[in-house]
Amino acid sequence: MTQQAEEPATVERVVLFDEGDPLALACGRTLAPVEVAYATYGTLNAEASNAVFVCHALTGDARASGPGGWWTSMIGPGCPIDTDRFFVICPNLLGGCQGTTGPTSLDFPPLAIADLVSVHRRLLAHLGIERLAVAIGGSMGGMQVLQWLIDAPGQIERAALICASARLSAQNIALSHVARRAILDDPDLRRGMATARRLAHVTYLSEQGMADKFTRAEPDGWADVRDAREWLAPAYDVETYLEHQAKIFDERFDPYSYLYLTRIMDAFDPFGGGPGSVALDPAARALVVSFDSDWRFGTEHSRALAAGLRAGGMTEVAEHVVASPYGHDSFLLAVPEYLDLVRAFVS
Amino acid sequence: MTQQAEEPATVERVVLFDEGDPLALACGRTLAPVEVAYATYGTLNAEASNAVFVCHALTGDARASGPGGWWTSMIGPGCPIDTDRFFVICPNLLGGCQGTTGPTSLDFPPLAIADLVSVHRRLLAHLGIERLAVAIGGSMGGMQVLQWLIDAPGQIERAALICASARLSAQNIALSHVARRAILDDPDLRRGMATARRLAHVTYLSEQGMADKFTRAEPDGWADVRDAREWLAPAYDVETYLEHQAKIFDERFDPYSYLYLTRIMDAFDPFGGGPGSVALDPAARALVVSFDSDWRFGTEHSRALAAGLRAGGMTEVAEHVVASPYGHDSFLLAVPEYLDLVRAFVS
Repeated sequence: MTQQAEEPATVERVVLFDEGDPLALACGRTLAPVEVAYATYGTLNAEASNAVFVCHALTGDARASGPGGWWTSMIGPGCPIDTDRFFVICPNLLGGCQGTTGPTSLDFPPLAIADLVSVHRRLLAHLGIERLAVAIGGSMGGMQVLQWLIDAPGQIERAALICASARLSAQNIALSHVARRAILDDPDLRRGMATARRLAHVTYLSEQGMADKFTRAEPDGWADVRDAREWLAPAYDVETYLEHQAKIFDERFDPYSYLYLTRIMDAFDPFGGGPGSVALDPAARALVVSFDSDWRFGTEHSRALAAGLRAGGMTEVAEHVVASPYGHDSFLLAVPEYLDLVRAFVS
Repeated sequence: MTQQAEEPATVERVVLFDEGDPLALACGRTLAPVEVAYATYGTLNAEASNAVFVCHALTGDARASGPGGWWTSMIGPGCPIDTDRFFVICPNLLGGCQGTTGPTSLDFPPLAIADLVSVHRRLLAHLGIERLAVAIGGSMGGMQVLQWLIDAPGQIERAALICASARLSAQNIALSHVARRAILDDPDLRRGMATARRLAHVTYLSEQGMADKFTRAEPDGWADVRDAREWLAPAYDVETYLEHQAKIFDERFDPYSYLYLTRIMDAFDPFGGGPGSVALDPAARALVVSFDSDWRFGTEHSRALAAGLRAGGMTEVAEHVVASPYGHDSFLLAVPEYLDLVRAFVS
């Protein structure tokens, strides 16, 4: 364990696009300035051949590893993404709210996954790195890795796409729509974002996982409560949990980022052009992992994603379905079979 | 086809409890007056032996059959519940908002499924009927049938419990909590109820059912839209569908009823006392149906419910899992295998 792992990550900031060199967005508009907050872990070797790029999901940030990090089971000294061996880069996403340029009103332009990847690639160039040993991401992070494989064949040696999707289902879009309308219908936005977060947490867990996690026990005497206000207040432990999640989310996240980043996912459809519409690096390797209890981006999503990679010319595409009761959240948790798969894939 | 089936049902109203004879609620408070809106279909025979009681689900009402009815595939001339043969009674629930007494503020007392059944039984007495040939209900309607079996052994000959639950899962409670908080957090209540309704419709369908129902096609040119307000507005057909459902629901439902009726379900746990805590009529017959794509009250719920009936002394408990892609909504739809099961059960 190095000193580095015991201290919170240092987040750097850099302006990667400015008025003279704005970011050209997929929607046709341009954006400048674009500042990016990012953290690095480990040391870049002399050949710059040990770089790992971590793409975070909807509500993540640059602090992937170290104390308080969101992916500490995956990234750190001795972890599957071993920071004693790899140089790990993790930026906050374009459109996010943790230091990287993002919306503060609806005057901010629409974004696409390709725009996020454009910023990632500019950051890589800024760091003097031409090629990635590994790009990895879960959920929306995997979408960025997929887009990157398409946009820059040859730049990624190994791509790990965890419970990701190449195209949202109608149910996925519907759930995001419920969340967005709740935010947009609220003049204050933030109560709506609390609704969105409560709902998201239900979809990140499985029914069995929730049954295991929560007792569902009623407070003593609650069944006989005579006042409806008291009766309707949070009583079950699962209700208290959701209230806690909504509260801490309100303290760290921005409703505009929530609106933009969920809408970006709805429109993502990189294989929508059909067979032959993308040409991938045949030498690149991919690991595609799903979890059997994930009903947000379940195994069908990963299967379609892997099929698209193969149709695009990749031959080394390994698919794994990992048993885990924790639903979509599994990708953030210490599920041994999953961590072993990633460890073996990057070795 | 009789004339009756071509005209909307006539909804009658009757005061069943008044100040001199109030309804004693499970919470310990009393309620008066209690007026009930109900509709009947078909004709009661001389022996009063052909009565069928229909318990509606969360947002139903007395108009089960006839034009505009919510269960026309099940109830009507020639239907499984054949109104040429049966006398069908369907009231709006206590706590509802379609003519039966319900909350107009949080000063209204907390309710329980047992209270709803107390009102059903009083209505039956008012109609001069001692015994039911059939009691039937789907979802929350099945909970009322179950409570009735417990509260009045011998009063129901045949009980059909469709995609019901004897105890909500933590996930069920969590989804209802998300909906209730959205309503309670909204000073106007109604925007929150729209959120609740959008969410409910997602949970009433299956992922595959939604994929079959919606094209997920984007409007032409939408991918390149340059204004975020336009980009965030409903674009996919599934979004338009949810907006439509929220709008028509707002026109017919009351947020207080939504709060109360969902909370009633959370607390329902009639077998919570363990084996031996309920004593059912051993001569009563039960049909317990679930649908394989229902993830709101799926087969595990029906299995536990049927086990509770058997533990309570019933021996004629038939369980069926019906294949249907329509999720929880299946109970309202013309799924042939399901309709045939009910037809055979009541014959």
